[in-house]
Amino acid sequence: MPPAQPAKAATAISPTRAEDFPGWYQEVVRAAELATMAHVRGCMVIRPWGYRMWELMQAELDLQIRARRHDNVYFPVFIPVSYLQAEAEHVEGFAKEMAVVTHHRLESVDGVLAPAGPLEEPIVVRPTSETIFGKSMAEWIQSYRDLPMRLNQWCNVVRWELRPRVFLRTSEFLWQEGHTAHETEASALADTLNAHEMYRTFAEDFLCIPTVPGEKPESERFPGALQTFTIEAMMQDGRALQAGTSHYLGQNFARAFGIDFLGRDNQRQHVYTTSFGISTRLVGAVIMTHGDDDGLVLPPKIAPAQVVIVPILRGGASEEILAYAEEVASELARPGGLDPLAPDRVLVDRTERRANDVRWSYIKKGAPVIIEVGPRDAVSRTVSYRVRLDHRNVRSVPLAQATEAIRSALAEVHDGLLTQARTRLRDGIRSDLSSFAELRKFFAESRGLVLAPWCGDPECEAALKPLAVSVRCIPEQLEASGDACIVDGRPRRFSALFGQSY
Amino acid sequence: MPPAQPAKAATAISPTRAEDFPGWYQEVVRAAELATMAHVRGCMVIRPWGYRMWELMQAELDLQIRARRHDNVYFPVFIPVSYLQAEAEHVEGFAKEMAVVTHHRLESVDGVLAPAGPLEEPIVVRPTSETIFGKSMAEWIQSYRDLPMRLNQWCNVVRWELRPRVFLRTSEFLWQEGHTAHETEASALADTLNAHEMYRTFAEDFLCIPTVPGEKPESERFPGALQTFTIEAMMQDGRALQAGTSHYLGQNFARAFGIDFLGRDNQRQHVYTTSFGISTRLVGAVIMTHGDDDGLVLPPKIAPAQVVIVPILRGGASEEILAYAEEVASELARPGGLDPLAPDRVLVDRTERRANDVRWSYIKKGAPVIIEVGPRDAVSRTVSYRVRLDHRNVRSVPLAQATEAIRSALAEVHDGLLTQARTRLRDGIRSDLSSFAELRKFFAESRGLVLAPWCGDPECEAALKPLAVSVRCIPEQLEASGDACIVDGRPRRFSALFGQSY
Repeated sequence: MPPAQPAKAATAISPTRAEDFPGWYQEVVRAAELATMAHVRGCMVIRPWGYRMWELMQAELDLQIRARRHDNVYFPVFIPVSYLQAEAEHVEGFAKEMAVVTHHRLESVDGVLAPAGPLEEPIVVRPTSETIFGKSMAEWIQSYRDLPMRLNQWCNVVRWELRPRVFLRTSEFLWQEGHTAHETEASALADTLNAHEMYRTFAEDFLCIPTVPGEKPESERFPGALQTFTIEAMMQDGRALQAGTSHYLGQNFARAFGIDFLGRDNQRQHVYTTSFGISTRLVGAVIMTHGDDDGLVLPPKIAPAQVVIVPILRGGASEEILAYAEEVASELARPGGLDPLAPDRVLVDRTERRANDVRWSYIKKGAPVIIEVGPRDAVSRTVSYRVRLDHRNVRSVPLAQATEAIRSALAEVHDGLLTQARTRLRDGIRSDLSSFAELRKFFAESRGLVLAPWCGDPECEAALKPLAVSVRCIPEQLEASGDACIVDGRPRRFSALFGQSY
Repeated sequence: MPPAQPAKAATAISPTRAEDFPGWYQEVVRAAELATMAHVRGCMVIRPWGYRMWELMQAELDLQIRARRHDNVYFPVFIPVSYLQAEAEHVEGFAKEMAVVTHHRLESVDGVLAPAGPLEEPIVVRPTSETIFGKSMAEWIQSYRDLPMRLNQWCNVVRWELRPRVFLRTSEFLWQEGHTAHETEASALADTLNAHEMYRTFAEDFLCIPTVPGEKPESERFPGALQTFTIEAMMQDGRALQAGTSHYLGQNFARAFGIDFLGRDNQRQHVYTTSFGISTRLVGAVIMTHGDDDGLVLPPKIAPAQVVIVPILRGGASEEILAYAEEVASELARPGGLDPLAPDRVLVDRTERRANDVRWSYIKKGAPVIIEVGPRDAVSRTVSYRVRLDHRNVRSVPLAQATEAIRSALAEVHDGLLTQARTRLRDGIRSDLSSFAELRKFFAESRGLVLAPWCGDPECEAALKPLAVSVRCIPEQLEASGDACIVDGRPRRFSALFGQSY
């Protein structure tokens, strides 16, 4: 006989993933209080729980970027249109999605405020900053001694979205953009690949998101880049999500902005540049990789609260229970305890709501471990807790063993999420299809990724458009079998990963 | 006989402070590689050394704000004009300096990119975010149990500047804006004063900038506020700089945006709100408070490098010298050493420039301590260092005593800067003037602050305009003597601090 089920049998999130994945996603974002889209079209308000996730990602990645000898800087939010125009492919790539500032004042006309003070040249809100970094690098770089120059910026960028989706496609998003300049092509390419590998390990080790690293086909490159590398993650609905990209820009931006230097041979020459970035879209990736039908499930390393302590305050003895809850919190936050640098990640919820509601709110918010402190725990000096992956079961340990038990529960969540996501990704990649008919049938009936031989011809990709399928990348570590392109049968040049994407 | 002077006798910065204070300021910003104003009019590029100063300020203040139970969030960079219009005084205060976005696309017209895709309603780039926070708070706050709500945001804001000045007045700047909502006026006012006191101690303890805390007169209040509190610092040229403000907004924004809640008495009522902010302008305040004629002088707590180690590499034995320089660095960075949490703040400069140039570059950048490692140091295992406040003298200690000596040198810089700034502020406040003629004469001939009785009438302030003087604040802790307003002789209502400002 199965153990008795708790009263709440239905899922906390409706619709479920199986019923309506996009609907489920929106509902998790709402129920976990991550963000809202209520204001200016396409922009989002990131709420405390969602913003803390981003801050924790930021803190870790900032350390890693600084360890790679990048200096943080801040460049203007506004870019003159003439800068964008200096690199033809670049402006082409972004012109259709720019917020354009044309005036610098508002004036009341018949009681209505209207734009006034027209600008001589319109400016745009940065969609990315290669051009304006290029302009400054040209001033700062004189000789090979100034190279490599490695800069990084955390900021907001704007790309006007006609079909916004919270975290995934928003008109404004937050991101990090690295920009480097090098003496040689080899040095620039090495940095590009170094950033690419940094993103891969960050996604896997920190967010528990395994990815397929690879190079983008020409059609999907960053506008102005010679090569774009990507890490592609697979969401639970089988769609691919581009989680971080690194670009080798060759001398395109150096030529456009005159970034040159006096070389070791005493000749003036152009630098080679790179850029790389990840954004708040990763919050969406975490939700869609790990969430379940009861809400968000958080990898412990980015959990705003790794452990939530809920004192059960109905009836008497509230003071004893609160005191014991605080004692449990200090025990966990002790030096050498859970996470000595971040004691704030053990949270005691002191709101006056019912314990059942509080517990469910943190299940929906994905807290890795929830401790409920009731009268019996205070008397017996035990700690009763639930682990998010298995939250219908309660475990109990003596207080003295709580730190160890909960440390191992956090590791269990981290490992469990990573294993589950790895299995899903491995099982989600089909590599046994061998014709375009099979490929078409696959994407008509199901979702997932397909690994298959590809001829590499941009025209061949046109045949994929009606299926809403694209080449996500040429994977670095996966090899497709077969010699003929799965799309048009011509000789294979690459192994390619095909998929529908966010 | 005075000791022999080093070869370099002239100042590193020209003009000097005495010759041309604004010119000196610009030159320090350039020589210390803090920022440039080269791009879009009024915007600045903050370079690594300047940006790191800001990051260190941010890190400390973020801890303090979080300790006061504020949650960080992120709101859209764009605000609909209609939101701003909801609070009449507020929009009035900002309408003349707004970047207005009117289009969401660029289209090529005869080869020139022009704005396309007009927006139905123009939007502005946020000059501050009370309105958009208000809109969300109205959604999130239902009952007194949701109060107080304390939010904070780190972001960029834009106020179009016709007379920009790097760090001090820029069209775009970075800042922190706190926004809180409360059940009662008392609770809101307490939070306003709490933020105000946080800023005062932060400026004094962290930036070594003593200030005069006080309340702004009505004419200088934040648009929409009932009370604005300020900390006023005095720069070396005697001008006042408003370094951080905290606003009690009463129910103005609550009424404008319908932020109401079900009270303990079961009645719906409006919340009381507050806001408070500090910005990258503080970088300018640090420069103008502590800089000298050889450049920037950094309070150790915000020094991107607290200690710079310069290996003297001319001639032979470079490897031994470099190895010894690294040994000195590890000695200082040892656990229990200078600053165990920030070992990156001991910097070994490995550039191949001449040691003399390197040393001067860090003097101009204001590094608190500079260690030069030459052949004799490596042999005798000593550490020779200069302290920025007294950088023409070299001190020397055995390696084993270096950590202690340099820790105390850093304390010496911190205490020295604070004492010097306190003395300057105390001596810079005149409180012995007793007539408008004397006040006028004072500001015509010299610079500084004047403490004097004031009637508090806005009309009285009009007489100050021609002198470019304003009431900086009604100080909390300073009392002027005399019963008659120094401007118009009417009965005194306040002690006021008069000054010319940045």
